[in-house]
Amino acid sequence: MAKPRLVLKFGGTSMANPERIAHSASIVAAEARQGKQVAVVVSAMAGVTDRLLSAAEALGGGLGEVETDTVLAAGEQASAALMALALKREGFNSEAVMGWSLPILVEGPPGSAKITDIHGESLDEMMSAGVIPVVAGYQGLNANGRLATLGRGGTDLSAAAVAAAVGAECDIYTDVDGVFTTDPRIAPEAVRVERISHDAMLELAAMGAKVLQTRSVEYAKAKGVTLRVKSSFLPAGTSAGTEVTPETAIAEKRIVSGVAYVRDQARLSLHGGEGPQSAELLFAALGDADVDVDMIVQARARSGGSVVECSVAGRDLPRALAAAENAARPNGLEVRSETGLAKVSVVGTGLRGRADVARTLYAVLAREGIAVRMTATSEIKISALVDADLLEHAVRALHSAYRLGAAPPKA
Amino acid sequence: MAKPRLVLKFGGTSMANPERIAHSASIVAAEARQGKQVAVVVSAMAGVTDRLLSAAEALGGGLGEVETDTVLAAGEQASAALMALALKREGFNSEAVMGWSLPILVEGPPGSAKITDIHGESLDEMMSAGVIPVVAGYQGLNANGRLATLGRGGTDLSAAAVAAAVGAECDIYTDVDGVFTTDPRIAPEAVRVERISHDAMLELAAMGAKVLQTRSVEYAKAKGVTLRVKSSFLPAGTSAGTEVTPETAIAEKRIVSGVAYVRDQARLSLHGGEGPQSAELLFAALGDADVDVDMIVQARARSGGSVVECSVAGRDLPRALAAAENAARPNGLEVRSETGLAKVSVVGTGLRGRADVARTLYAVLAREGIAVRMTATSEIKISALVDADLLEHAVRALHSAYRLGAAPPKA
Repeated sequence: MAKPRLVLKFGGTSMANPERIAHSASIVAAEARQGKQVAVVVSAMAGVTDRLLSAAEALGGGLGEVETDTVLAAGEQASAALMALALKREGFNSEAVMGWSLPILVEGPPGSAKITDIHGESLDEMMSAGVIPVVAGYQGLNANGRLATLGRGGTDLSAAAVAAAVGAECDIYTDVDGVFTTDPRIAPEAVRVERISHDAMLELAAMGAKVLQTRSVEYAKAKGVTLRVKSSFLPAGTSAGTEVTPETAIAEKRIVSGVAYVRDQARLSLHGGEGPQSAELLFAALGDADVDVDMIVQARARSGGSVVECSVAGRDLPRALAAAENAARPNGLEVRSETGLAKVSVVGTGLRGRADVARTLYAVLAREGIAVRMTATSEIKISALVDADLLEHAVRALHSAYRLGAAPPKA
Repeated sequence: MAKPRLVLKFGGTSMANPERIAHSASIVAAEARQGKQVAVVVSAMAGVTDRLLSAAEALGGGLGEVETDTVLAAGEQASAALMALALKREGFNSEAVMGWSLPILVEGPPGSAKITDIHGESLDEMMSAGVIPVVAGYQGLNANGRLATLGRGGTDLSAAAVAAAVGAECDIYTDVDGVFTTDPRIAPEAVRVERISHDAMLELAAMGAKVLQTRSVEYAKAKGVTLRVKSSFLPAGTSAGTEVTPETAIAEKRIVSGVAYVRDQARLSLHGGEGPQSAELLFAALGDADVDVDMIVQARARSGGSVVECSVAGRDLPRALAAAENAARPNGLEVRSETGLAKVSVVGTGLRGRADVARTLYAVLAREGIAVRMTATSEIKISALVDADLLEHAVRALHSAYRLGAAPPKA
């Protein structure tokens, strides 16, 4: 029977200096000694990407410049070879593998390229021969033969792609021991989520603590790769972590996985006119202004006429308002807005149609005196827009109401 | 008529930070605006190679480790792309070119690889099209598809190789305005050498101030590439520098170019036995002990029997002595040694057989009361081993006697 395969990904804090690299290598070594065929994918040493980028910026090269990508890719080149050295010292045969040498083929603009193909044959051969390949993350080779990077956090994506290419599961090592039911800084009783679906993970990942890059989860979902989020700051073999698996693999039927939140939200609404036309007008204007829209509600106002409402990031509001006003004025429509909001979301699996989950959300927020400005539901979350000052209160109340924490909810 | 071509090489101090890179780019731009087709070869930013090497060493990877080379090569990757950015800001089209992408093919051990071939076609095309290629120095691709470095100072070698490949002359930018007739710290009246042959340059380059890497001068000599040593710390176009040309091109017939010196020398001698056999015994033993031998003298001792003498670096003496003793004892020969010496050399062109040059050397040292422990002559230098305490005195006296300085020699 073929040996199980595992890709281990280490981020910048896990590669911050030779001591941390050596510790991360000990984690790889422990997996290999258990008989797994392993490959490693690494980020640049913490701080290096920022230093390289600021040097490039000082010379007129921002993100999205083809030469800047060559500057940045040097960070992962160095750290991949340093990890290979550390694994050799652990007694393994190991070799650093670059995006250009494998190659990992990418396309799209510099600074935010997409992986189109990954030639995994040589990785296959190395792993079968007991050599541990250490792949430089975050980068690939484009059709012009130039290095191109995948955007911030792109090493997670590299790891998911390498895992898919060699038929492995993928452990993402970071500085936290998995994903939590909510932000422990807000609700200290938050506990680690043991298993979660890719979709629910996407929602939790969008929270403040961005332990997994969104695109890597999407990629892993599409390719059916099981991910695990683990901590490299614990001794080898002791991080339990959170497993991100295809929905069908989740046996445990705890429906709600966690409570996520996003700060700095704003609400924008367009009053008057007919619903569909107003909505089209508003979203065309916001799209042209490159404003991302999150929640959307369309309703008939009590006064007659329609109201189209949406939420946007607070920092985008000035731009969104200007675009909306320009579109509304010639049509005699009125734009209103509200800032100082935040979004709280109950995240889980198969939530749509689960009336009890929604009912609890409304009941809890009402009981706590927290006004709900807007709501939205999907398969995997129910979100409410609330006053920013009441956000943490809402997070704690919902976390407790869904019995997510370590301690029992207050009576 | 084809435009003249020029390769400009910038070392670590010329690439130390974005400001210095921008200044170096202004020097490139000035040459390009004069209608030359230019290419650039760069070192890593000052300090980066040392930092990368110490990280590799901390993980068990010294120089000569294949993974260490991948770590180190990252330094030039970043600086090449930073220079390309700076040239774009100067209004030129520019592109960073890596050792692996050109490729520059190398062979030999990691950390001290040799360039075997350089595919200059794409450089040719870029230069003809007005694109300024910026080549990452110090590195190439070996037959296993791995990055390999050329050893310290290897970027000078990369530059000479690129110049030879595209039929260009090569300006080596460093932090001094050319090569001096001797070390200005010892003889403040030292002046810049305007033109010098490759061979004589090799001798001056071996001095304390190593402005040019020996292998790059040898490579340039073999390929007939004219080099210039210039300063990147002067405004663009103002560094006069030193031109290193094939001997036949040197019109100026000032025979002696400069006075070079090497500190920390030792003398080792083997007494008794027959000359040729003793010499063979001694040099076989030193060779086995990996000790480099510099000057060699063989003579018949006044007491009868032969004496074989040689000079070695002072730091190698303990190793040399042990090896010589081991070889001498079973043969009944006696080993003697002396430390605290230094070598002073008069360097020029066509010196062998120029009795006046040698006569001046002996006369000056005798007049100054400086005992000569050993001498050696070649086409391009006459060297004397002297007491280390008298070295600087000897350098000043010889520099003055050969009228190398700016001021007339003292009466």
